[in-house]
Amino acid sequence: MPDITKLLWPRSVAIIGASSDTTGLRGRIVQIMCGHPFAGAIYPVSRSETVVQGLKAYRSVVELPEPVDLAVLIIPARFVPQELERCGAAGIRAATILSSGFAEEPGGEGAALQEQVRTIANRYDMAVSGPNGEGFANTAAALCPTFSPVMEAEATPLVPSVARGQTAVISQSGGMGFALFDHGRPRNMSFRYVVTTGNEACLETFDLVDYMLDEGRTDVFLLLLEEVKTVSTFHRVAAKALAAGKPLIVAKLGQSEAGRRAVLSHTAACAGAPADHRALFERYGIVEAHDPTEMIEIASAWMAFGSRLPAGKRVGICTSSGGGGAWAADACVAAGLHVPILDAQTRALIDLDLPSYGTSQNPVDVTAQGVHQRGYAEFARRLTNSPTVDSVVLIITGRSPRLLIRDREPLQRLARETEKPVLIWSYTQPAPECIDLFNEAGYPLFTNVHHCAHGLRAMADYRAARERLGSNQKTMKGLSDGLVS
Amino acid sequence: MPDITKLLWPRSVAIIGASSDTTGLRGRIVQIMCGHPFAGAIYPVSRSETVVQGLKAYRSVVELPEPVDLAVLIIPARFVPQELERCGAAGIRAATILSSGFAEEPGGEGAALQEQVRTIANRYDMAVSGPNGEGFANTAAALCPTFSPVMEAEATPLVPSVARGQTAVISQSGGMGFALFDHGRPRNMSFRYVVTTGNEACLETFDLVDYMLDEGRTDVFLLLLEEVKTVSTFHRVAAKALAAGKPLIVAKLGQSEAGRRAVLSHTAACAGAPADHRALFERYGIVEAHDPTEMIEIASAWMAFGSRLPAGKRVGICTSSGGGGAWAADACVAAGLHVPILDAQTRALIDLDLPSYGTSQNPVDVTAQGVHQRGYAEFARRLTNSPTVDSVVLIITGRSPRLLIRDREPLQRLARETEKPVLIWSYTQPAPECIDLFNEAGYPLFTNVHHCAHGLRAMADYRAARERLGSNQKTMKGLSDGLVS
Repeated sequence: MPDITKLLWPRSVAIIGASSDTTGLRGRIVQIMCGHPFAGAIYPVSRSETVVQGLKAYRSVVELPEPVDLAVLIIPARFVPQELERCGAAGIRAATILSSGFAEEPGGEGAALQEQVRTIANRYDMAVSGPNGEGFANTAAALCPTFSPVMEAEATPLVPSVARGQTAVISQSGGMGFALFDHGRPRNMSFRYVVTTGNEACLETFDLVDYMLDEGRTDVFLLLLEEVKTVSTFHRVAAKALAAGKPLIVAKLGQSEAGRRAVLSHTAACAGAPADHRALFERYGIVEAHDPTEMIEIASAWMAFGSRLPAGKRVGICTSSGGGGAWAADACVAAGLHVPILDAQTRALIDLDLPSYGTSQNPVDVTAQGVHQRGYAEFARRLTNSPTVDSVVLIITGRSPRLLIRDREPLQRLARETEKPVLIWSYTQPAPECIDLFNEAGYPLFTNVHHCAHGLRAMADYRAARERLGSNQKTMKGLSDGLVS
Repeated sequence: MPDITKLLWPRSVAIIGASSDTTGLRGRIVQIMCGHPFAGAIYPVSRSETVVQGLKAYRSVVELPEPVDLAVLIIPARFVPQELERCGAAGIRAATILSSGFAEEPGGEGAALQEQVRTIANRYDMAVSGPNGEGFANTAAALCPTFSPVMEAEATPLVPSVARGQTAVISQSGGMGFALFDHGRPRNMSFRYVVTTGNEACLETFDLVDYMLDEGRTDVFLLLLEEVKTVSTFHRVAAKALAAGKPLIVAKLGQSEAGRRAVLSHTAACAGAPADHRALFERYGIVEAHDPTEMIEIASAWMAFGSRLPAGKRVGICTSSGGGGAWAADACVAAGLHVPILDAQTRALIDLDLPSYGTSQNPVDVTAQGVHQRGYAEFARRLTNSPTVDSVVLIITGRSPRLLIRDREPLQRLARETEKPVLIWSYTQPAPECIDLFNEAGYPLFTNVHHCAHGLRAMADYRAARERLGSNQKTMKGLSDGLVS
């Protein structure tokens, strides 16, 4: 296996195909890379320009003043093999290829080019992502070799000021991969990496997961898969992730015939049958998601409560809106969760502070008046203490911080002290101040109640998968002990 | 039937229970009402204050200087019947009751109070919404008798500057009803009314729909139902809405046992069995939705393309992101739509402007380069002209207006000229300028691809339901003509 560190953490980078024209992709990539405070050297390589956006340009990688770690290739496909060969010969050990026109192109020529890329990468033991990718981002290094508008310097800061844990995106699709970053950053989610892998001629999604698991800095993985390429790698890495307790949240594209047609022409992927991958996913506790926002919202729940996964599927719902409570109850049941009537002791405690027209049965409708008098946190705490439930959904309106500020400290305390996850759904559009308030207090804020329900179900299933793994390992150990004695 | 115009379009309003304390609900409602430029008179009624938030207050409705059209009641439940009686005697013919503690309260006393409300309303032929509602909003009259923070004057303007058609929300749940307004306004959706009906002791959801159908100014209805109260009213009004071509987009709460428990304690509603209402809904082409954002997004599609509903379930997908195309194809198929390979003539036309690694099969992956060269509109237009498809999903990134401004005029022209709906999904978070650009051009902008697919399916089903209705009517007419001749 080539050294992925050279790809993701290079000290110096050559951009082959760099341009001054920032209306085109070859100029935008330079602009984006130079817009971030990457500490290493950036060398434009261009046949036609001597200065590119203020940087001295070189005619070829062989003329560079030092052997760089990473080559970024954004040139027509037919020139890629010879250029990659030149990189290998010059001692460059990593490349990301953004050019399209390889195996995804109808007819055989592109496939042959891709085979050449693969052969050259193997010969020089180069870590190569792509071709037909959209590059990547390493936020800690402020390195963004991509033309994705999502990574433009004037957009959201790469790293949030407050963050709990880090996530990594690995996606065959460039557009959708960076879209996950785009959806997550306004929610204060921290992305360690966004890597787009395109056709995966050389490095595959699970090679990168493997590297990041070894590195130990990524807590949750968001994977956008079109094809599981090497099945043995998948098995090994998925088992490793489960053992490490690092969830893989996966959207598998190509579930329909039309979708399979699409991924074939997109990245030359053979999507396979949905039933097959679903069985594989279940085995390793992989969370399947169906929408970008759902992936982001479930990941944020994990980063807040991943160490306190629910022991079962019983949910307590606490709401200031009676209609919202009914909606959430229906969503939880649809996701395969249970919403049991609470035990008498918990109900008696909650009833102490409810108006006569509220209810403590579950959903617990504390009413607007109840919240006005006691705040959300106190009711949610009583619910987390119930032996009847394994997790709590708290339904709020995040429209105005005015209604929440008084509750800030009790909410923070609850987040620290609860042993059961508390997920919050705002049924109105949350104000940015409210998103910050909840994030700082340690809660993910869901904008979609079905994502909230699906997330709790996934967390409960994941804990069960981990426990199965543990007892299997004990059984195996018991068996081998027995054999030895 | 009492005169609902007195309720929704009063010339003068008394607020019974008005208060100066704007930290409480009784003060907030005055503040919100006075914050909007309602042209009629507002009279606070208070037992303890002589001036409320700068307005002269009256001790009782009998002391008001004129007989008002509408009484807003926000006083403890036990005082509501006697106060409503006083209103009736004083000639007031409409009331909205925001107090809780009626039939939704366990034990019989609240139910008895509710029965008294009903009797008094009937005796005086008063149009009464509630009790246990959260009031309403009539945006054209700038009248907001509610304490919902969503309707605060400093929030979004009540009416958007640009709008295509108007929607009305009718919801038993106050929180969720106003939440729909909250989700829709940032997307430039125009809400004629938001009416929250609570326990529906007197006026029911379908009475209000009936009134609004007769008024003829509402194009799409968003209904949040906990119970269909009077089934005969439902049948009559649902048939009337279908005949008028005004879609009812409904979320039915209480689909699970826990959800039924929740609506019973929320508005004393008997939710009924999901299979029963689903059969009823199908009969009248009612669109069932499961998420607030889904309701808003489908409604916006209708307001843009309601006069050009798809003739069938065949969808053409046009995308600049290959992964996005695969995602959308899977979502369409999951929603029961078809994504057929396009006819040869359309493909040949599209291929003229595709790079070699794009594809015209469907999904049509025009690639980032294709968009850069020809813009989105031209490809979408070629797709709408295909005899193989009934509608088009156009997938874009709405992150930056820079990439779209050049396409503005062709997009506008396409929206005017197409006979097939074109729904747009932005896979990144759309910038406000992009939302405006698409809205002005005449397109709804979806942020969730499943909502987009569900919306197209619902529009196709609705057209089929209307055609069934038409042919039934013709058959009936044919039969009766036959009988006469």
